Amino acid sequence: MSELLQPLEPLIQALRRLPGVGVKTAQRMAFHMLQRDQEGARQLARALVTAVDSVRHCEKCNTFTHETVCSICRDEGRDAARLCVVETPADLAAMERTGAYRGYYFVLMGRLSPMDGVGPKDIGLPELLVRTQEPALQEVILATSFTAEGEATAHAITELLQGRSIEVTRLARGVPVGSELEYVDLGTIAHALVDRR
Amino acid sequence: MSELLQPLEPLIQALRRLPGVGVKTAQRMAFHMLQRDQEGARQLARALVTAVDSVRHCEKCNTFTHETVCSICRDEGRDAARLCVVETPADLAAMERTGAYRGYYFVLMGRLSPMDGVGPKDIGLPELLVRTQEPALQEVILATSFTAEGEATAHAITELLQGRSIEVTRLARGVPVGSELEYVDLGTIAHALVDRR
Ligand SMILES: [Zn+2]
Ligand SMILES: [Zn+2]
Repeated sequence: MSELLQPLEPLIQALRRLPGVGVKTAQRMAFHMLQRDQEGARQLARALVTAVDSVRHCEKCNTFTHETVCSICRDEGRDAARLCVVETPADLAAMERTGAYRGYYFVLMGRLSPMDGVGPKDIGLPELLVRTQEPALQEVILATSFTAEGEATAHAITELLQGRSIEVTRLARGVPVGSELEYVDLGTIAHALVDRR
Repeated sequence: MSELLQPLEPLIQALRRLPGVGVKTAQRMAFHMLQRDQEGARQLARALVTAVDSVRHCEKCNTFTHETVCSICRDEGRDAARLCVVETPADLAAMERTGAYRGYYFVLMGRLSPMDGVGPKDIGLPELLVRTQEPALQEVILATSFTAEGEATAHAITELLQGRSIEVTRLARGVPVGSELEYVDLGTIAHALVDRR
């Protein structure tokens, strides 16, 4: 980093902590926010602090919420026999949009990725183990991504639940291999749900 | 935006004000910062506010600085006969790294772009007109990008300075057409500087 860019360096370094942002992108972002959108910069600063301070995890399903227990987990009209395990709140939202599922969820907030230092505890597997002890539960549907890491995560959860009287199923391979659930069209997800194995 | 992602929506919307960040990227950034790097989120918030509050423009050359006049403009050992006009502080830094230039600078902080609503006042052309009234000045070297917008900007400055006893030159076309200065190798920039026309 040149001395000539030094006034912006703290901001450039901070922007690089965003995923997928390298030094050139961070420079361009810093220039833009300072030069053309200072109100946007202040808004982003406020939104970051508010989010970190006020967004919490649902005590039952682990998704982001402002409350102790999220609206889906509070919905008593759902099928308590089924629990669908997804990687992110966006995956949960995609599953809901299919209209083909009426059970509850558990959101891992990630997937196993030893290379990135993401282990079983980072994706809430201890909490999932607790959650699956509810007596009404009969089936855990694994809806992790069909990527190497998503499959490894599904495999780890299958092992975790072995020996329990719970059926562990996986979304059918109607979901294109190599893709992430949130980008898949709804019909494909719905079909994969019906064909779960 | 699904109601299920609502707790993150203010942050996602704020992240979208960063250049080149669409809704999917903003979602991924929001998840990452909340789930894996809350300290990074707080650091980014602080850096944004500090930058907006403390970074100002050099009164002489318009680059970003913490002071009234930047270190280059305060350097009295430079050639006051020459003023190099660049688009960004990163371009200024690239020019300095060549070691081939010892004059002063004017930083436009952008380039003319009517489509994006960037006009002559947004890139400091009134201030440039003032800056070029210094008696010692003999030559203005246009080092804007060799893109359509950079060429239009160079053209506008040439027109602006017409009828004054100042030579207006342009970096030679040794700089590959269609590229932005800050990404060009130093030898090419140095060569283009010598061959300026
Ligand atoms: Zn919940
Ligand atoms: Zn200056």
